[in-house]
Amino acid sequence: MKRSSRDIVHEIIFEADTPSGKLFDLLLIACIVLSILTVMLDSVQSLSAQYGDALYVLEWVFTILFTIEYFLRLWCVRKPFAYAGSFYGIVDLLSILPSYLSIIIAGSHYLLVIRALRMLRLFRVLKLAQYITEASALSDAMHASKRKIFVFLYCIVVLVVILGSLMYIVEAGGGGFTSIPKSIYWAIVTLTTVGYGDISPQTPLGQILASLIMIIGYAIIAVPTGIVTAEMTKSAISKSDISTQACPDCGRGGHSPKADYCMYCGSKMHI
Amino acid sequence: MKRSSRDIVHEIIFEADTPSGKLFDLLLIACIVLSILTVMLDSVQSLSAQYGDALYVLEWVFTILFTIEYFLRLWCVRKPFAYAGSFYGIVDLLSILPSYLSIIIAGSHYLLVIRALRMLRLFRVLKLAQYITEASALSDAMHASKRKIFVFLYCIVVLVVILGSLMYIVEAGGGGFTSIPKSIYWAIVTLTTVGYGDISPQTPLGQILASLIMIIGYAIIAVPTGIVTAEMTKSAISKSDISTQACPDCGRGGHSPKADYCMYCGSKMHI
Amino acid sequence: MKRSSRDIVHEIIFEADTPSGKLFDLLLIACIVLSILTVMLDSVQSLSAQYGDALYVLEWVFTILFTIEYFLRLWCVRKPFAYAGSFYGIVDLLSILPSYLSIIIAGSHYLLVIRALRMLRLFRVLKLAQYITEASALSDAMHASKRKIFVFLYCIVVLVVILGSLMYIVEAGGGGFTSIPKSIYWAIVTLTTVGYGDISPQTPLGQILASLIMIIGYAIIAVPTGIVTAEMTKSAISKSDISTQACPDCGRGGHSPKADYCMYCGSKMHI
Amino acid sequence: MKRSSRDIVHEIIFEADTPSGKLFDLLLIACIVLSILTVMLDSVQSLSAQYGDALYVLEWVFTILFTIEYFLRLWCVRKPFAYAGSFYGIVDLLSILPSYLSIIIAGSHYLLVIRALRMLRLFRVLKLAQYITEASALSDAMHASKRKIFVFLYCIVVLVVILGSLMYIVEAGGGGFTSIPKSIYWAIVTLTTVGYGDISPQTPLGQILASLIMIIGYAIIAVPTGIVTAEMTKSAISKSDISTQACPDCGRGGHSPKADYCMYCGSKMHI
Repeated sequence: MKRSSRDIVHEIIFEADTPSGKLFDLLLIACIVLSILTVMLDSVQSLSAQYGDALYVLEWVFTILFTIEYFLRLWCVRKPFAYAGSFYGIVDLLSILPSYLSIIIAGSHYLLVIRALRMLRLFRVLKLAQYITEASALSDAMHASKRKIFVFLYCIVVLVVILGSLMYIVEAGGGGFTSIPKSIYWAIVTLTTVGYGDISPQTPLGQILASLIMIIGYAIIAVPTGIVTAEMTKSAISKSDISTQACPDCGRGGHSPKADYCMYCGSKMHI
Repeated sequence: MKRSSRDIVHEIIFEADTPSGKLFDLLLIACIVLSILTVMLDSVQSLSAQYGDALYVLEWVFTILFTIEYFLRLWCVRKPFAYAGSFYGIVDLLSILPSYLSIIIAGSHYLLVIRALRMLRLFRVLKLAQYITEASALSDAMHASKRKIFVFLYCIVVLVVILGSLMYIVEAGGGGFTSIPKSIYWAIVTLTTVGYGDISPQTPLGQILASLIMIIGYAIIAVPTGIVTAEMTKSAISKSDISTQACPDCGRGGHSPKADYCMYCGSKMHI
Repeated sequence: MKRSSRDIVHEIIFEADTPSGKLFDLLLIACIVLSILTVMLDSVQSLSAQYGDALYVLEWVFTILFTIEYFLRLWCVRKPFAYAGSFYGIVDLLSILPSYLSIIIAGSHYLLVIRALRMLRLFRVLKLAQYITEASALSDAMHASKRKIFVFLYCIVVLVVILGSLMYIVEAGGGGFTSIPKSIYWAIVTLTTVGYGDISPQTPLGQILASLIMIIGYAIIAVPTGIVTAEMTKSAISKSDISTQACPDCGRGGHSPKADYCMYCGSKMHI
Repeated sequence: MKRSSRDIVHEIIFEADTPSGKLFDLLLIACIVLSILTVMLDSVQSLSAQYGDALYVLEWVFTILFTIEYFLRLWCVRKPFAYAGSFYGIVDLLSILPSYLSIIIAGSHYLLVIRALRMLRLFRVLKLAQYITEASALSDAMHASKRKIFVFLYCIVVLVVILGSLMYIVEAGGGGFTSIPKSIYWAIVTLTTVGYGDISPQTPLGQILASLIMIIGYAIIAVPTGIVTAEMTKSAISKSDISTQACPDCGRGGHSPKADYCMYCGSKMHI
């Protein structure tokens, strides 16, 4: 059976387990890394002053390459709207838009770093099913404990609002505690044990209250750890393989190796 | 059977699983969030100077609304004293008092942020029994390891008192170590890995001692984590559902979905 | 059988589960807390200038009380040397020595805070066997993972020596990296995620290396947690009760409730 | 059977469970610690000015001792290239090279701290097989979760690139956010909860974003902990003893006590 050029392009761009598909993905990731480096270096004033023009040209070269790639993806996929609406489809579009936007709004081209999200494709390239399994084991554990983490974070928010306001009253605007929002910001910095030190209590009562907040933070850091560890131990027992193949129609991955039809759009997987 | 107006008000205010009860709770949480934002913004000087009057009026509007709500709760519950003495009853009262207090003592209205505690009602509104289960799983794990955490915190207190005093002797008042209480404050800041940097050892001996404290802190952060994780794994095995309905008599929640009578006051649950 | 005055004094001072013994221990802990507060407040210059004389008298009152108590303990115990050589015997002696030492060497009385170690007696007073069990569960888990923690800390020391020196070479004495010991101190501050900010890398290469150290520190904080959690889960399964009674001969505790003879000195437990 | 001098030297230098071998290893570690201290003290300017000459001589004494030791190792091992290419062989060579290099390039002798890696030999000296088992249990748990940790760190890198760039756009170069690489450095400092405070957000929007990053960092610190804890619990079940004896041919250790032949080079273990 002779394959159409669309099928060949699809195999190169979307598959990660054929030689040409793997090569394409590796080249793509190299381009993404280089384009991110270009944006980064452009933000360093000393480099921007010297090599600004070269970096500007490079940035547009990558943007044009990614634009061509985006339209090729739309063309070769059977259901372009399904791809365009998927997570990777949106990321791929957002990765080229800021360049065109920067013609109108200066400085917006720094948003190009959103391309970093495209680097997550690496897991598909690594081919080894285990990496995908590990990644999905991690995200499964995160997903399973989603509700517990929401409850935890909500309680943290209530806690920092009350503690931050108390500190504002206690410190009476001194030591950087100039408003309640700023005091809440300090409470978050302290509770998460980050501790910048740009705001720090100066009065004895404030330092006692701060000590209390730190010890509370020290104790409750155990909670998210406990949540995730429990889930991870569970998921470690029942591991399942996931195929590296993406659907030829909608371009979404994460299917079982036994899957005959895409679990998102219902089209046949192996042509 | 015709229901009295008290029963209807009770259903609206106390129930979370009837349409009207859910709507009321959502509106209430919106009001709480807005009233907290009002207090917060009022503490920012630049905003207070410009919109101070409007914020002052808003604050009183919310206070009057919450006052009406508080008296309605007292009126429609069959045992008002049981409600007034419960956790939520006290929080509800504390949420309105600071406004009236601010007439006498200026600045006390910042205490209104205690209203943030009322935001914990959200878990009842979310209707999904799982959120309650998660919250109670978290608090169960905390409760079960209460004694272990007390022993741990007590040892931490003994440790920071000794280490802080040693640092005061070693640094001899330099680098911010001006008194033993301040040195103990520093020891807590260091042991919990917060590390503001407002006080930091300057002498070589002090830095060696500080390094020791940090490594100890790094090692013992494992203890609360170990405690909670062990409990969480246990409690993850024996999960039980909890109803979102509150008792019509005493207003307390946390009942089993099969409960016919309140487990706190013994009155009939479903009228 | 008539009991001698020594036996009565022994019961009051050493037992924690008779009414008189419990009262004595509670009074003792109150005195310890007050005496520590005295030393602390004496170190605050503003308070020392005003109430220096009163604090000085109070300190000596507590020292004399503790000296009397120490000699009573030696007198009523059947084997005074066993007590004097035990952990609590040494702590009890160290709790009174600094006062007498301060007559010769000024400032040494701050060492009195070592009295804080005597506060650990609280666990015996709490009477509830569970607290002792929890404390011993914690120390058992620590003890069991002692070797693993030693291996871990040794590797950390090797790591910070190498990383600290590398930063000294990279930063070439800038940004506070004035010597290798100071750079090692910085590496510990960073690896333990304390992060004072008194020393921080200024060169791009130094910041890249620092980022690496932080991410390493973030990853290996999991190791002590993993060690202790694993032990704690194990020890949670096999809990055993421990008596609150101390040996009448050598004064050491931690015996099984079934113990008839002291496991340290072999003398009869229940007289 | 009479043993050759090469066999005797081999036993002294490579074995850790004969009296002479143990003594040699202890002396060696003492020399390593002293030589590292020499390099460290030499980097402290005040000490270097006063004792510079003595430290310089000491440094060369240790270097010559280690050079002799290195050539003795090469001579007495049956397969010198296998030793020279092993981990310890390379470390042993790197431990002497910087001294000779410092004749040509000034300042390179600070690289001598790489000798710290030789301190890892301590685990072989400790003789107790358990220490080796603990070390290998730790490294096994690390090894087993290698892929999960790679996936985790890769996601962290993607996250800090995006968050750092966002902060650069939000803060617009203020508060130390002068370029995207520096903002990414700040994002790492914050996400790992180190928090130096040399760079910290100044605008309200920046502080909100920073709060978000901190809470994210607080939540995901649970991930590596969960990974390692799960592995550690697994590996704690299946412990196996490991001998302290090194192979007389290739010098590599980590063998089972029942091993008759080296598992790396196949030569007889017990001569």
